[in-house]
Amino acid sequence: MRINVLTLFPEMFTPIQTSILGRGLEDKKWELNIVNFREFSERKHHSVDDTPYGGGAGMVLQLMPIKAALDSLPSKGKVIITAPQGKTFNQQMAQEWAQEEELTFICGHFEGFDQRVYDYVDEAVSIGDYVLTGGELPTMSMIDATIRLMPGILGNDFSSVEESFSHGLLEYPQYTRPAEFEGKKVPEILTSGNHQKIAEWRLKEALRATYLHRPDLLAGRDMTKQEQKLLEEIKDEEQTN
Amino acid sequence: MRINVLTLFPEMFTPIQTSILGRGLEDKKWELNIVNFREFSERKHHSVDDTPYGGGAGMVLQLMPIKAALDSLPSKGKVIITAPQGKTFNQQMAQEWAQEEELTFICGHFEGFDQRVYDYVDEAVSIGDYVLTGGELPTMSMIDATIRLMPGILGNDFSSVEESFSHGLLEYPQYTRPAEFEGKKVPEILTSGNHQKIAEWRLKEALRATYLHRPDLLAGRDMTKQEQKLLEEIKDEEQTN
Repeated sequence: MRINVLTLFPEMFTPIQTSILGRGLEDKKWELNIVNFREFSERKHHSVDDTPYGGGAGMVLQLMPIKAALDSLPSKGKVIITAPQGKTFNQQMAQEWAQEEELTFICGHFEGFDQRVYDYVDEAVSIGDYVLTGGELPTMSMIDATIRLMPGILGNDFSSVEESFSHGLLEYPQYTRPAEFEGKKVPEILTSGNHQKIAEWRLKEALRATYLHRPDLLAGRDMTKQEQKLLEEIKDEEQTN
Repeated sequence: MRINVLTLFPEMFTPIQTSILGRGLEDKKWELNIVNFREFSERKHHSVDDTPYGGGAGMVLQLMPIKAALDSLPSKGKVIITAPQGKTFNQQMAQEWAQEEELTFICGHFEGFDQRVYDYVDEAVSIGDYVLTGGELPTMSMIDATIRLMPGILGNDFSSVEESFSHGLLEYPQYTRPAEFEGKKVPEILTSGNHQKIAEWRLKEALRATYLHRPDLLAGRDMTKQEQKLLEEIKDEEQTN
């Protein structure tokens, strides 16, 4: 996949060129093309903002440099912009985007876009109910969530684990050495060697975490008989506690 | 405010040391202390992960290096970790955190933490319903959302605009030069010079954006009479369209 990013801060993009995603870039599993749209400004000092029509404090990002930067791309794929009125980003969108051949992200900064920019984008996406100084961090989060789903990025071992938990539950608790740390012990069952019991414990604890913290994820769930039985046990246990 | 970050990837943290937040660091409005917890591993090659108890693919981050890194801090403030079962991060949390003197963030990476790490944190926070390769991007988003609310970070001009829109509506559309771009014109009212009309148009369009895209934000809203009247107009207009 090819990812284009339009930004005023190309130097911010280290996180997605480091670690696992960075290795994916080196291995040419994906491609990153960062464009500074300041270079497309035809104004003095390459300024890209101006005062708002109708008055008020602050500045507004001009349309022209963004549009010119978009036009400079040989191809764009889906064009995505972060915006508070957009659909909230989620895992399903990441899964859909991971099927695309090319995506283009436009990053604003705290001043806000000229409204007409939305005529040139395919999707306006919100990253959540909070305000950031710019679109770079949410854009990188969306790129990370998308690229990590592509074949060969996380490596086979991890992907297979992932797959078994893409079924809409929170993860079960994990433990590693030491077996005891400051008096806190690993649950005995995990050192029992009984693989069937361990699998059941893990399913139950994944269900419990979801029931306690994200019951909304269980609402639409088509549960197996085993899951239904475990969930009843959990409800009893949690009532007693 | 002092922010401590425990991470395996200190080099990822450029975005919050650039632009507006970077200027805030230079001006000593806030302080950033990045600790690589790999340095606290006592194992060969400073490894920080190990196989999970109970078997399965993948690795789990060990507790010891994280706890040792936490213990190395002279003070910690509230200790925050990103976790899917946590409370979803939002603007109100950013506002509360902006009042703190110190915050400490622990960043995991794709392998997941030893469950016992949660015994050493004050808040587990989810950034949304999507999966990332590590905690660095969500941590930076939370830091950005928090620090930008501190006095003197965004500058006075912008803060005052902000304040007038911290009342729970999406923003009204903004426009800047040129007045016409590829046939798309700025709404006439914004060039009318009638400040009262402009203010009413902006309030109405903020209400309209919120009504169309985030009606949930209007549900609990204590509306003024003007807002009620404008909302009725909007409902009529949107039905006709």
